[in-house]
Amino acid sequence: MKVAGSFTAHSVDAMDTAAVADLIRATGAQIVINVGSAFVNMYVLEACIQTGAAYLDTAIHEDPAKICEIPPWYGNYEWKRRADCAAAGVTAILGVGFDPGVVNAYARLAADDYLDTVESIDIVDINAGSHGRWFSTNFDPEINFREFTGTVYSWQNGAWQSNKMFEVGKEWDMPVVGTQKAYLTGHDEVHSLSARYPDADVRFWMGFGDHYINVFTVLNNLGLLSEKPVKTAEGLEVVPLKLVKAVLPDPSSLAPDYTGKTCIGDFVRGTKDGAPAEVFIYNVADHEDAYAETGAQGISYTAGVPPVAAALLVADGTWDVKTMANVEELDPKPFLNLLNRMGLPNRIKDANGDRALEF
Amino acid sequence: MKVAGSFTAHSVDAMDTAAVADLIRATGAQIVINVGSAFVNMYVLEACIQTGAAYLDTAIHEDPAKICEIPPWYGNYEWKRRADCAAAGVTAILGVGFDPGVVNAYARLAADDYLDTVESIDIVDINAGSHGRWFSTNFDPEINFREFTGTVYSWQNGAWQSNKMFEVGKEWDMPVVGTQKAYLTGHDEVHSLSARYPDADVRFWMGFGDHYINVFTVLNNLGLLSEKPVKTAEGLEVVPLKLVKAVLPDPSSLAPDYTGKTCIGDFVRGTKDGAPAEVFIYNVADHEDAYAETGAQGISYTAGVPPVAAALLVADGTWDVKTMANVEELDPKPFLNLLNRMGLPNRIKDANGDRALEF
Repeated sequence: MKVAGSFTAHSVDAMDTAAVADLIRATGAQIVINVGSAFVNMYVLEACIQTGAAYLDTAIHEDPAKICEIPPWYGNYEWKRRADCAAAGVTAILGVGFDPGVVNAYARLAADDYLDTVESIDIVDINAGSHGRWFSTNFDPEINFREFTGTVYSWQNGAWQSNKMFEVGKEWDMPVVGTQKAYLTGHDEVHSLSARYPDADVRFWMGFGDHYINVFTVLNNLGLLSEKPVKTAEGLEVVPLKLVKAVLPDPSSLAPDYTGKTCIGDFVRGTKDGAPAEVFIYNVADHEDAYAETGAQGISYTAGVPPVAAALLVADGTWDVKTMANVEELDPKPFLNLLNRMGLPNRIKDANGDRALEF
Repeated sequence: MKVAGSFTAHSVDAMDTAAVADLIRATGAQIVINVGSAFVNMYVLEACIQTGAAYLDTAIHEDPAKICEIPPWYGNYEWKRRADCAAAGVTAILGVGFDPGVVNAYARLAADDYLDTVESIDIVDINAGSHGRWFSTNFDPEINFREFTGTVYSWQNGAWQSNKMFEVGKEWDMPVVGTQKAYLTGHDEVHSLSARYPDADVRFWMGFGDHYINVFTVLNNLGLLSEKPVKTAEGLEVVPLKLVKAVLPDPSSLAPDYTGKTCIGDFVRGTKDGAPAEVFIYNVADHEDAYAETGAQGISYTAGVPPVAAALLVADGTWDVKTMANVEELDPKPFLNLLNRMGLPNRIKDANGDRALEF
């Protein structure tokens, strides 16, 4: 720790609600930041409801047995407990990493302050960094590949639209990282933002190089990304995706050699004073800077700083809303101002130029 | 069976020499055609030496634990038993499929009848057929991939040369199948032909499409073609190559849909009457014809007919040489004539044109 304080580790089975609740009571924790696997959300949330602790997470709940559920995903799990959170006066902030999280705050800010009507929200996530390996995923390969093997859902023309991964690609002109190709991808924030802005098209785009797509396509077409076991000629039952995970680099091992930058932001289009208008609100992060400060790569940094900022806002009461909320339901300005000071500076680019975003 | 006769199946552990010898004695078999896996050769050969039965195989012996041994490969196993075969008066014909096998006879014929000196023997194997699957190997994936993950050995300038797979490619202008790209590959016949023709360069080239190379490269670079076990996060030990085999199509399932042709032959260069000369001796086979006749695809047909032809020549005494021999040590003409009548017609292309090869 870089400042004086106490930091204590405990181990707990996060899928055992009673054990998590006991740990919350034993430690007196008032805020729980759940950055466990996406499979544990509902168990930890239940423990918070039972104990009154605030709950924060960074990704939507997933059932390990289901690759891609019917939208809206939040409606399948988290939102079913919204009334219980309100009744218990429990603050639960869902999806408060970078994307989802900061990008939801960007969308809210654009809609509130820069546009009169919102016609489309395109969230674009570009990692223009290089890890120097022949191939690696940036986070747990099992979770990474699961994002892309199912149907790609987007919200367009007031309805859910279905595509396949890498079916719809588009080049985006981005600050710092330049023109980058990104592909329509299913992602958590499309589900919550489309509920708040049902008249807008809401799309998520993730940048992929041709090399990633090629490796993914080979593995996927051969059946090596399947979560269903296959039997070898010798009779051994193997889940292909778990073997692929075992042969790939451990993503945490990439950090020391990672160079380059990420650019993640929202292109929001609509009208202002009766004329068409567009605003791009974004952050640029640097892998080497992230490693120098924290020992982690940029992908971990952008995902890890926002929930801590959110926890600070819950602690000081600013975001202690005593119910369940997605980030776009909360005032974005204190959150973005805090991120400006915590290493994730926010910028805006529109007809008035490209400038720092401060309030 | 298409003609009257008796065909009886027995099961035996082919790595148990005593059991194989007992079966030879019990059936009174005088000729053993070993088309088992490349791992069983030396056990079956020993059973033939003990019982006096003739031995034929179609591929060099391999140790399952070793991917690519030091050349010459025949010298590591089979040729060590040559004196024992001669002493016992046992005929053992090594590598008498198509390649190795028929292509060795082509080389011998070119050297004997069409050239005065031999400067190079380039064996080119092109499968221009299509099986209609996204990806498949044409025979057991485990054996197929093992051929390409090690060092590529060729005999050039009077010495063994080392390359990596897909490092050296060359376009070949072939009859029927047209111009095809093939890659320098290690193969059995390079080891025996270079012993007989040490002053010639001896190379083997196998045709690969870009798609095969891409899939191979992805799997190989990720470590998924390794024969060494890896451990998953759950603690399961898995040999990656065996899982890859499990997810790929069973090659025997390809036959009904296989279309197109194969072209396999020898470009032999040297001099004739003091002038440079080149001859190409080859066969073209058709996947659909092979399936209509036998229910198997062309790759199985070209590999399966030659050892039967050789067995007929052993049975009638023509090739019953009472010692160990590679195909290039035997008179090629009766073998090639027999293949002409058994569905594998041979052709020659040289300065005098492209014509059937008959004696």
